[in-house]
Amino acid sequence: MTLKTPEQYVDSLRALKIRAYVNGAFVEGSVVDHPAVSPHVNTVAKTYELAHVPEHAELMTATSHLTGETIHRYTHIHQGPDDLVKKIQMLRLLGQVTGTCFQRCVGLDAMNATYAVSYEIDEAKGTDYHQRFLKYLEMVQREDLMVAGAMTDPKGHRAKKPGEQEDPDQYVHVVEQRPDGVVIRGAKLHNTGGINSHEILVLPGTAMQPGEEAYAIACAVPADAEGVIFVFGRQSNDTRKLEKGCDIGNTRFGVVGGEALIVFDDVFVPNDRVFLNGEIEHCGTLVNYFATWHRANYGGCKGGNADVLIGATALMTRILGTDKNTIVKDKLIEMVHLTETTYASAIGSSALGYQLPCGSWMVDPISANTVKQNITRNVYEIGRLSHDLAGGFIATLPGTDALDNPDIAHWVKKYYAANPDYDVEERIHVGRYIENATSVTTMVEAMHGAGSPQAQRIPMLAQANINAKIAMAKDVIHGKDDVPGLPLPMNDL
Amino acid sequence: MTLKTPEQYVDSLRALKIRAYVNGAFVEGSVVDHPAVSPHVNTVAKTYELAHVPEHAELMTATSHLTGETIHRYTHIHQGPDDLVKKIQMLRLLGQVTGTCFQRCVGLDAMNATYAVSYEIDEAKGTDYHQRFLKYLEMVQREDLMVAGAMTDPKGHRAKKPGEQEDPDQYVHVVEQRPDGVVIRGAKLHNTGGINSHEILVLPGTAMQPGEEAYAIACAVPADAEGVIFVFGRQSNDTRKLEKGCDIGNTRFGVVGGEALIVFDDVFVPNDRVFLNGEIEHCGTLVNYFATWHRANYGGCKGGNADVLIGATALMTRILGTDKNTIVKDKLIEMVHLTETTYASAIGSSALGYQLPCGSWMVDPISANTVKQNITRNVYEIGRLSHDLAGGFIATLPGTDALDNPDIAHWVKKYYAANPDYDVEERIHVGRYIENATSVTTMVEAMHGAGSPQAQRIPMLAQANINAKIAMAKDVIHGKDDVPGLPLPMNDL
Amino acid sequence: MTLKTPEQYVDSLRALKIRAYVNGAFVEGSVVDHPAVSPHVNTVAKTYELAHVPEHAELMTATSHLTGETIHRYTHIHQGPDDLVKKIQMLRLLGQVTGTCFQRCVGLDAMNATYAVSYEIDEAKGTDYHQRFLKYLEMVQREDLMVAGAMTDPKGHRAKKPGEQEDPDQYVHVVEQRPDGVVIRGAKLHNTGGINSHEILVLPGTAMQPGEEAYAIACAVPADAEGVIFVFGRQSNDTRKLEKGCDIGNTRFGVVGGEALIVFDDVFVPNDRVFLNGEIEHCGTLVNYFATWHRANYGGCKGGNADVLIGATALMTRILGTDKNTIVKDKLIEMVHLTETTYASAIGSSALGYQLPCGSWMVDPISANTVKQNITRNVYEIGRLSHDLAGGFIATLPGTDALDNPDIAHWVKKYYAANPDYDVEERIHVGRYIENATSVTTMVEAMHGAGSPQAQRIPMLAQANINAKIAMAKDVIHGKDDVPGLPLPMNDL
Amino acid sequence: MTLKTPEQYVDSLRALKIRAYVNGAFVEGSVVDHPAVSPHVNTVAKTYELAHVPEHAELMTATSHLTGETIHRYTHIHQGPDDLVKKIQMLRLLGQVTGTCFQRCVGLDAMNATYAVSYEIDEAKGTDYHQRFLKYLEMVQREDLMVAGAMTDPKGHRAKKPGEQEDPDQYVHVVEQRPDGVVIRGAKLHNTGGINSHEILVLPGTAMQPGEEAYAIACAVPADAEGVIFVFGRQSNDTRKLEKGCDIGNTRFGVVGGEALIVFDDVFVPNDRVFLNGEIEHCGTLVNYFATWHRANYGGCKGGNADVLIGATALMTRILGTDKNTIVKDKLIEMVHLTETTYASAIGSSALGYQLPCGSWMVDPISANTVKQNITRNVYEIGRLSHDLAGGFIATLPGTDALDNPDIAHWVKKYYAANPDYDVEERIHVGRYIENATSVTTMVEAMHGAGSPQAQRIPMLAQANINAKIAMAKDVIHGKDDVPGLPLPMNDL
Repeated sequence: MTLKTPEQYVDSLRALKIRAYVNGAFVEGSVVDHPAVSPHVNTVAKTYELAHVPEHAELMTATSHLTGETIHRYTHIHQGPDDLVKKIQMLRLLGQVTGTCFQRCVGLDAMNATYAVSYEIDEAKGTDYHQRFLKYLEMVQREDLMVAGAMTDPKGHRAKKPGEQEDPDQYVHVVEQRPDGVVIRGAKLHNTGGINSHEILVLPGTAMQPGEEAYAIACAVPADAEGVIFVFGRQSNDTRKLEKGCDIGNTRFGVVGGEALIVFDDVFVPNDRVFLNGEIEHCGTLVNYFATWHRANYGGCKGGNADVLIGATALMTRILGTDKNTIVKDKLIEMVHLTETTYASAIGSSALGYQLPCGSWMVDPISANTVKQNITRNVYEIGRLSHDLAGGFIATLPGTDALDNPDIAHWVKKYYAANPDYDVEERIHVGRYIENATSVTTMVEAMHGAGSPQAQRIPMLAQANINAKIAMAKDVIHGKDDVPGLPLPMNDL
Repeated sequence: MTLKTPEQYVDSLRALKIRAYVNGAFVEGSVVDHPAVSPHVNTVAKTYELAHVPEHAELMTATSHLTGETIHRYTHIHQGPDDLVKKIQMLRLLGQVTGTCFQRCVGLDAMNATYAVSYEIDEAKGTDYHQRFLKYLEMVQREDLMVAGAMTDPKGHRAKKPGEQEDPDQYVHVVEQRPDGVVIRGAKLHNTGGINSHEILVLPGTAMQPGEEAYAIACAVPADAEGVIFVFGRQSNDTRKLEKGCDIGNTRFGVVGGEALIVFDDVFVPNDRVFLNGEIEHCGTLVNYFATWHRANYGGCKGGNADVLIGATALMTRILGTDKNTIVKDKLIEMVHLTETTYASAIGSSALGYQLPCGSWMVDPISANTVKQNITRNVYEIGRLSHDLAGGFIATLPGTDALDNPDIAHWVKKYYAANPDYDVEERIHVGRYIENATSVTTMVEAMHGAGSPQAQRIPMLAQANINAKIAMAKDVIHGKDDVPGLPLPMNDL
Repeated sequence: MTLKTPEQYVDSLRALKIRAYVNGAFVEGSVVDHPAVSPHVNTVAKTYELAHVPEHAELMTATSHLTGETIHRYTHIHQGPDDLVKKIQMLRLLGQVTGTCFQRCVGLDAMNATYAVSYEIDEAKGTDYHQRFLKYLEMVQREDLMVAGAMTDPKGHRAKKPGEQEDPDQYVHVVEQRPDGVVIRGAKLHNTGGINSHEILVLPGTAMQPGEEAYAIACAVPADAEGVIFVFGRQSNDTRKLEKGCDIGNTRFGVVGGEALIVFDDVFVPNDRVFLNGEIEHCGTLVNYFATWHRANYGGCKGGNADVLIGATALMTRILGTDKNTIVKDKLIEMVHLTETTYASAIGSSALGYQLPCGSWMVDPISANTVKQNITRNVYEIGRLSHDLAGGFIATLPGTDALDNPDIAHWVKKYYAANPDYDVEERIHVGRYIENATSVTTMVEAMHGAGSPQAQRIPMLAQANINAKIAMAKDVIHGKDDVPGLPLPMNDL
Repeated sequence: MTLKTPEQYVDSLRALKIRAYVNGAFVEGSVVDHPAVSPHVNTVAKTYELAHVPEHAELMTATSHLTGETIHRYTHIHQGPDDLVKKIQMLRLLGQVTGTCFQRCVGLDAMNATYAVSYEIDEAKGTDYHQRFLKYLEMVQREDLMVAGAMTDPKGHRAKKPGEQEDPDQYVHVVEQRPDGVVIRGAKLHNTGGINSHEILVLPGTAMQPGEEAYAIACAVPADAEGVIFVFGRQSNDTRKLEKGCDIGNTRFGVVGGEALIVFDDVFVPNDRVFLNGEIEHCGTLVNYFATWHRANYGGCKGGNADVLIGATALMTRILGTDKNTIVKDKLIEMVHLTETTYASAIGSSALGYQLPCGSWMVDPISANTVKQNITRNVYEIGRLSHDLAGGFIATLPGTDALDNPDIAHWVKKYYAANPDYDVEERIHVGRYIENATSVTTMVEAMHGAGSPQAQRIPMLAQANINAKIAMAKDVIHGKDDVPGLPLPMNDL
């Protein structure tokens, strides 16, 4: 069985003994059943559900290059540009269906990066990391596991490197090398979906220097392994999830992927789950591969999310009665334009992909960076335009508990009525969704996910090959290779 | 006594019997003591407090042109450009001290607008509205009252005018003309500070057409008048105000001014508090005067709020250890640049003010519109840059209840430590403040307060006098009045 | 012979008797040898030259689906997404080599549009336009002709349709239907490359209404047909092309494609060159197909041109000695970012292409529109950043005739010296290239070529399918299809 | 006589023996009568003309604080914020009348800077520079002279300071100290209006370090002093000024101020014209004072120029028949908005001015910097919008020599006709004006005049007082000074 149903996904999570703290308290029972977590579980469940829908099979599934079996695309190693394009299309679809982050991309990109780099290390050093990883990958594909990539170290003082920190645990590192495995210590921040995953794939968060070998560690850890502790993050308006009524906004799903701090409190990892151990010179490539795939993704998932926000905003203009206005339409067009720009770029980045030494396919790096860079601007501008069109009531609307009080419910219903074709509850519910979809948590995720803005810009300069462009300029400006006989001014110089 | 102390302000509010619903429930006792309201009361209290600080006296107080007494500037009628400039400076100061909306501007602008238009109606029609208003104003100045302007009607279907709505109550209107006064019905939305004000000054929210005379009503109502009901709005992360710990962010103050729906359930207003009643042709001017002053304000108050946000963001870069980075500095500069642009424009709008028929002073309209228009963009961009520099943890940070649980408090403290010169609690607290200061409620207020973006653009076209510009262009392009004897090409045409 | 050499292209042009006016005067002899035209001829010659360079063969040539022969890609009908992607790559390459417009795209897109629509008309009406066009196309492919598309009518009063104009000739129309062909009258504006083309492919410039049948005409005319008159447009700094020295900037090539007004003074077109004649209901499709392909192109050609401008700007920073500065680098990165955004989107638009009824392939329309829309902004911002980095001397530099005067040449050389590794002439030459590459002519072409900005926005709204997005939003907001057993709030609503 | 007429200004120029090279050739006779220079002379003549127009007297003239006489405002030392505001208003007026740069601002700001700094040096060192300058200033005021400020040194290798250059002449310096004066050598770039000025006021172009005393020199030189040589710069489309017909665009006036390279080929300056000589520690202040006043100016002059461009663009929409379109109007509004933003900020910067030690008034520095920073963006965006609305014909229009050829004149007139209420010549003439007003020369001047963009940003960071903002943030976040008795959460922390 290689395609879990949503129910199987949820049941398999319930079977794990995940140690998690939510709102400061230890979660007794399964995290799945905690009301702060279940919306995120439900979102991921959609990724499982749609793989069983025939019309989406082409996007949601792939053929394993290891086994030839039909697997979930979220466990697939990209075999060509077509796979890369379909991945982006899958992300947009899922973004449209959930209106939020569906969390499995980090793991997918982490697996692809580990696949590629373990191969390259073996080629360079004669190790057997790639074979280890292939076995691990086959299990993930066969069991259709959710794997959470764990990338971002706490980083401590930002002006200091891993080996220079006062606290050596600011980057995950190996504290004991054993014959049968390693013991790791440290933490990963901003972990998306780990709390409702089967597996955690731990990768270095940055390039490493000589002397930082202990920080060069990539390995897979079951989400409920001894010593793994999740401290769940809070999100804008998170307590509304515990309320009833339409203030919840996007009822069934989260605002972004439920992020957590993962603590690795001296976790033992057996050798067959270790895929890089001390090879500092490969850490940069691993981070870079991961980040490049991940940056292109944002054109897909945020495109889908923007579709929902555009739809909610357009719906709001109908509720308000402003939808015929030319300027209103032009602002909707701008929201569409910004969305399609990043989506098309992500597709372009995929279509321009190139083959890695291991045989799998990487997106075009410079355009992947532009995708993410545009996301850090366009998502904000889309949100701004949504606020413009949705109106000021988003900031001043009473809570829906007012609707439960008969003394005032009629006032709220009367004075928030607009276009009589729509109920007031619809206006409130759509308004609250817009509030969630443009909340600080949502925006900051778009800003910093897959790397902060400057992290995209710095490689772009190298990738642009400025020297080649200077050569082009010199040739255009000084070149002399005219068509003989044509009376060009250059002849006279 | 013309300058209340903060304590006198609070006590005077407690003496009122305001009917308010917060979180759906009727507030027993004084609204002042409700934890959702008290931060907003405390913010306003700062406006009273600073008027007693000698170094701020020049900005915070003025000399009444009615009585010659020293009064609070928030009850003053602008007597010249200098008053207009000082108002903007006062707003920036208060914005810096509170980091949020201090609520008294709507009332100030509403009083100035009523002062001016009541004079103009009397001139045109021989009525006595201006005399009525002078008595009212004298009381406000003498008692240093907080007056909330109530402008925005619910508006129902946006494509329909007041007289065309299915529900005639979508705009506040007179339902009964009595010899001794009027009875009004309807509601006002987005009311800033009304719930903690002494007085509500109700003005028409739009220009009126013939047939809409009943909607042409301006009058003052005590905040606890019979039939006045407040339904308090909710704000992003509002329930955090009820928590302990640094997740509250800006502990003592609100995110924006506590906004409410005010219902006027057939409220009787005696004649001496009625300042416009049926004079439809003056409603447009009243709205326009109010909006123009109010739009210039945003360069002051949002400038002060931005100062606090810039400070918090700069502090965060020190906490993280990124503050020496050139690009980081350049982004701080951009935040400063955007802030100073709107502030300087607001000062410019004030310095270019002109005198109204009644003798008071109006800001330059077209530049007041540009101030607000820029606010609808710059506040978002400032927020975006703040998110960029503050880092992704704003979106994923655990709640401070984690710090109360000894099982995990040490993990959170360890792994959110950055520059060791700063405590983790400081990082969290500053981060949460940034979250609040860039929340949806905050942003939407900046977008729609003083009128939605298009409301500034439409008058700008008329104010720009395009015909005069075309005449300038024709003269530059076709003019012939050269200096005699100069060999200009025009001579040859 | 299906691939002309540059020399053959030029010679074949000399064999034509093109009637052209340049700078107001009739061109005696061949237009090719006119100094205002030859730079544009030389640019096109590059498209012929590169088709013979083995390393560029994959991009520059294609296999004719009509004959199976190797043809120039500029005469090819797109047979799949791969062809569409390669076209964009070819455009970027040519843009890098020439730094300007190479003119053959309009004809290519016009041929593809005519191919597709003639098929659709035949299907609908049983006409034989497609067969006629296939013969014409085969000749173009075989002889590797340069075909200029002629699209934009003068349009007269913009608020009036073709049939409403005072002057019926404001849109090209048929003034006589003969048994053996038609006689057309009117003009086309902004014609790119027509003056140095073999053929003019005339298409309607807009959708047509009933009663405008005479305006519904698509046909091919030899560039030297009787009655065809070119009036060559002028460009910014065009007279510098007639000077010597480095003020010319891009010496061998034009600033943009040499544009002309083409007058059709009652030109007879035989039936085998007529591909649409009166079928008003197909005009809109024809325009739309043409424009959609053409809009995607801009991500390629302007990308290549931007590469040269970025190179020239980076070179200038070295000449000035500012190239190590962090902010300078960041601005170069921004230029790169803007360039790669539109290029990647154009690739994405191609990769998402779909098959038309005739069997050829169309780019994804909405993303093609975003490409062009971004061009109308990004090209300006790239130019602005180039000016920022290049420095103020671009505006104040003496002409190079100063270098010919020994009284002052030494002053100019002394005081425009910067980094001693570079000659002053280099600084001047590069500066003048930047001036040309950001001139009004260049910018306006980027703004209005392939349709003015609003022409991209209006179709975008329809292409975005707002109703589908509203449905997505409703489903996200109101959907109930949760995973059974998960404790989602929705259960309680 | 303190107010010259335009004719007197021109005649007084003719009386000078200015050594100038234009288009590489020495100008025999007066520069005034050279067709490349006369448009710039004519522009300045407007500044003289308007001082005699009674309705403009308040803006154009001032009362000398030295003599009490009515003088031209362009020779005035600012005596208060009102003077600063009126200066900005004068600039906008002149910008509206000429549509270009009127050149006298550099000299005005240079005189004000010298006035202030000579006073400060005397205070610090007991020198008599200020007295010297007062005598000079009195002459300038009395004779209403045009003084050109000469600021920008060639600067050589940008990464090196004045004392580090290979060529010591890359910054103007004293090569001989004589008892009766100094001999200076070097050059100034980008000199605005010097070629048609009476006087050149030479100031240091940057702050100086110990060892660079010879570079610390401020002095006044008659424009026709021995050893002063002008090499006139060229401008976009400059040769069109020598053509006839409407391609000239702005017929009577230049595109920007006629800029020149000024060479100081060992020029002797007597002591009474020397105002700083070796006081390195005052050079930074001098540059800073100059630049700060000058940056605020751009809100005035570019505002006036933008008015003409907006007018030309609006006129073009009427010519084309697009003027009723809602989106067209909205784009005009945006042009207005951008213009008024910088104007209002410049007024604000003036109104917030402060008094210098010498008694004159300085604009508010940080807002002056924002004005110029916004100019480097807004002028480009205004130009972009103008191109959008004006249409593609700006790039492809034939020259007006076509109108002189009867073979084609009728075609051009027929096919460029649009709204029949307007002549084709009007369309062409307005189009060419738009081309000029958005040319590279114009744009680059807006970008780099008064300092390149980064030159405004760097001081802004210091002027913003980030530490004060951090203190504000800490107080808002951690402050405890609540109103006693109010139930704020802080009580519980």
